[in-house]
Amino acid sequence: MSASLPHLSAAQSENLREELIAYALTHGLVVRPQPSFLADNPGGSVVVHAPVALHPSEFPKQAFDHAKEIQTGYNELYAKIANDEDFMSRIMAELAPVDDFMKKLWELHLTVKARGILQPLSLGLFRSDYLLHSDSDDLLSARIKQVEFNTISSSFASLATLTADMHRNLASRGFYSPGNPEHYNLPENPAMRAMARGLAQGAKAYGGKTPVVMFVVQADERNVFDQRWLSTCLMDNDGIQSYRVAFTDIQQRCSVSADGTLTLQTPDGEVEVSVVYFRAGYGPEDYKSDREWQSRRLLEQSKAIKCPTVITQLAGSKKVQQVLSDSGIVERFIDTQDAAKLRETFVGMHSPDGSPAGQEACKLAMEQPERFVLKPQREGGGNNIYREAIPKFLQSIQRDHWAGFILMELILPPIQHNAIVRQGSIYSASVISELGIYGTILWSKDGTILNNDEAGHLLRTKSRDTDEGGVAAGFACIDSPSLV
Amino acid sequence: MSASLPHLSAAQSENLREELIAYALTHGLVVRPQPSFLADNPGGSVVVHAPVALHPSEFPKQAFDHAKEIQTGYNELYAKIANDEDFMSRIMAELAPVDDFMKKLWELHLTVKARGILQPLSLGLFRSDYLLHSDSDDLLSARIKQVEFNTISSSFASLATLTADMHRNLASRGFYSPGNPEHYNLPENPAMRAMARGLAQGAKAYGGKTPVVMFVVQADERNVFDQRWLSTCLMDNDGIQSYRVAFTDIQQRCSVSADGTLTLQTPDGEVEVSVVYFRAGYGPEDYKSDREWQSRRLLEQSKAIKCPTVITQLAGSKKVQQVLSDSGIVERFIDTQDAAKLRETFVGMHSPDGSPAGQEACKLAMEQPERFVLKPQREGGGNNIYREAIPKFLQSIQRDHWAGFILMELILPPIQHNAIVRQGSIYSASVISELGIYGTILWSKDGTILNNDEAGHLLRTKSRDTDEGGVAAGFACIDSPSLV
Repeated sequence: MSASLPHLSAAQSENLREELIAYALTHGLVVRPQPSFLADNPGGSVVVHAPVALHPSEFPKQAFDHAKEIQTGYNELYAKIANDEDFMSRIMAELAPVDDFMKKLWELHLTVKARGILQPLSLGLFRSDYLLHSDSDDLLSARIKQVEFNTISSSFASLATLTADMHRNLASRGFYSPGNPEHYNLPENPAMRAMARGLAQGAKAYGGKTPVVMFVVQADERNVFDQRWLSTCLMDNDGIQSYRVAFTDIQQRCSVSADGTLTLQTPDGEVEVSVVYFRAGYGPEDYKSDREWQSRRLLEQSKAIKCPTVITQLAGSKKVQQVLSDSGIVERFIDTQDAAKLRETFVGMHSPDGSPAGQEACKLAMEQPERFVLKPQREGGGNNIYREAIPKFLQSIQRDHWAGFILMELILPPIQHNAIVRQGSIYSASVISELGIYGTILWSKDGTILNNDEAGHLLRTKSRDTDEGGVAAGFACIDSPSLV
Repeated sequence: MSASLPHLSAAQSENLREELIAYALTHGLVVRPQPSFLADNPGGSVVVHAPVALHPSEFPKQAFDHAKEIQTGYNELYAKIANDEDFMSRIMAELAPVDDFMKKLWELHLTVKARGILQPLSLGLFRSDYLLHSDSDDLLSARIKQVEFNTISSSFASLATLTADMHRNLASRGFYSPGNPEHYNLPENPAMRAMARGLAQGAKAYGGKTPVVMFVVQADERNVFDQRWLSTCLMDNDGIQSYRVAFTDIQQRCSVSADGTLTLQTPDGEVEVSVVYFRAGYGPEDYKSDREWQSRRLLEQSKAIKCPTVITQLAGSKKVQQVLSDSGIVERFIDTQDAAKLRETFVGMHSPDGSPAGQEACKLAMEQPERFVLKPQREGGGNNIYREAIPKFLQSIQRDHWAGFILMELILPPIQHNAIVRQGSIYSASVISELGIYGTILWSKDGTILNNDEAGHLLRTKSRDTDEGGVAAGFACIDSPSLV
């Protein structure tokens, strides 16, 4: 352990670590331990504090405000994309040959559509993720560049709120700057309550006798308390009951009647589900057999409001993001002025496919790989190929599979110093931070938007050495911004 | 696992267990795992939910109200006993020959007194513990009988408040009585905030520049979050800073100046301590060498307000409790009407010493052991001898050590059915419950009482098979009363 705040003594750093861990453990800022650390966790009764930043990382206020300001524009853009069958059909025509998972999702959508869509309303709990980009490594003048737009299972809203509360608490008690407690500008983070409010709006709009939200979850989820806090908010703030159902148990516990009513078997009897909230099913790992595909179809064809629908999930593919970067596309969906503000966050994106532009992209990737990251089209993080590893990777796969990837210009984020507190220990590191802005939107197939809100933020910080973004895997953590 | 609420289905019981554990883990109702379960707990970063009752146990409202009503009377009684050097001197004359720990505490008190007491104020954070007694096993007509009166390290106030909150939350959501959510009468439990307020009153009365509370703790404490929550309340409700110092580190980090000022070395420099709050030092296990005795003397001779002073700790000995049961003693200290209400909670207590009454008590113990429990004089729980084990135990020790014990008539508590949720599993059992009422009092050597308050409650429930009371050791748990 080394001190990450150079002005703190060893004793002050140790004290800060102890107080931080105590705060996290008493305020529910927790996750289940990794099985490698604790093989047997009886009844899920044991938890560890979530990996968090020792102190808030600096983030330029202008960039933070920009990201928040455009979130409702992004919400609207993706809602409209999900409503545009023709547009998505053209996207999928390109994606299907190279991505089997996307293909199957699209087929599922078409099957259900052919039977007739019973629920005109869709709910989105989105998160737009950005890195700061600066050619000069100057933090203050850095601008946000979009990394990806998540349309399914946007996680960490609750833990982000709790981390912001924790950092503000520690700062106000002077742990970061002894003798000068009010050093930081730490914004409130309403993410937890705002995302729960989004679910509540959907549940109420469904119009059933009793609003009910069903969380579809992974059976072995470690980040379960992030989800539990949303349930707590749903109950405390709106009196709305929610149930957790493992994706693998859907068929056993759910049924859909002729009119599309989705009924869930609970310990207290049957309930009608208003909103299906997916915290599973976002990647191919969750579809181990045909059984899970049947489960997804069962839910999709019901008249419950899906968060998200299959087509909304597909709208979050990186292929869509890449096509939007072509000129004039965003402007087809939303107001030109709004579109311009979104465009400021775009980076160069190329599809290494068979088109003339695609062939140009392939050449770029082979000759100047250090400028790029190669990402698979599908959602869920992981498996990104960076810089010099790109040519070798492309050569290792079939040529006609190249179109399953997107070549993105690398964003050059300013580097800061922070420390990651993970399983009780402090790891000091050079770090970069990724800002996520949450958004909730409830819209109808006819284009009506019932609610559209920016819904708080997430700052994830990772050591410069790890190229992957997930907090759970590797040395990344939940942070909060100190606005400068 | 078997269902403890017979009207619940297996699925409902399982659901209740999951929701209970999730609530506990998200709301800081936690303890450190036992080393036997988790040998390595890096940075204390791993916690398990506290052992709790699956549902509230029934408790007669008349008995609960009686216990709360008399708490300020008990607070006053013990404050006045601690002020009465002559009375305590006579008690210690009997105890010293048979209890080396008590003897050394008393000698410490006399040494410090001889140098001059620098702080006239004393702070008590007390807890009076009761069992219900009923000859007929009828709960409604059962009366409270005092088991012991704790004058040092009265624990579980925070976890008791959190458990009451949890039971109320689960009840309001219908987990105990599906379809009939408002079945229980569950009183609010202010214990956590009320005990912290007691500390705050002491810290403010000290009159220093900045009020500071020092928690003296055991280095290997598992029940650390019960204490952490008091610190959190101190800061949140009164802006009062507190520090945790291991009893073994006192000499290294504390010093007392000529005028009695107690100075603590903190990571941010030196602070003057207003209140020394002992959550260690209550039993001989904490005094492994002369070093700890020196630490205790250092603190005692300072002008910081002690919670408690050594003589207040000694006033909580069972010998005092036994002497109070003799006629006319309570009435020497407090108002006769108040005394009568306290007396209703007394059980027969005898000292098996050399006096004529003592010899009668010895005879009783040998001939009718099934009516009694034999308790050592010293504080801290454990090592009680029950019923038929008493004669054999007395014969195994020297005759002149018998006076180190108190023979108490056994209380016959009504038996209920409940279940203990412990490390993720449910253990269904026949149980008995022990009610503790907290009290805080701040008083002066001249007899002035500055504050005197009842301060919430604790219900501890244990399986009928375990005869020991500690929640940490064995199958006991924190519960909350459902008033009937």
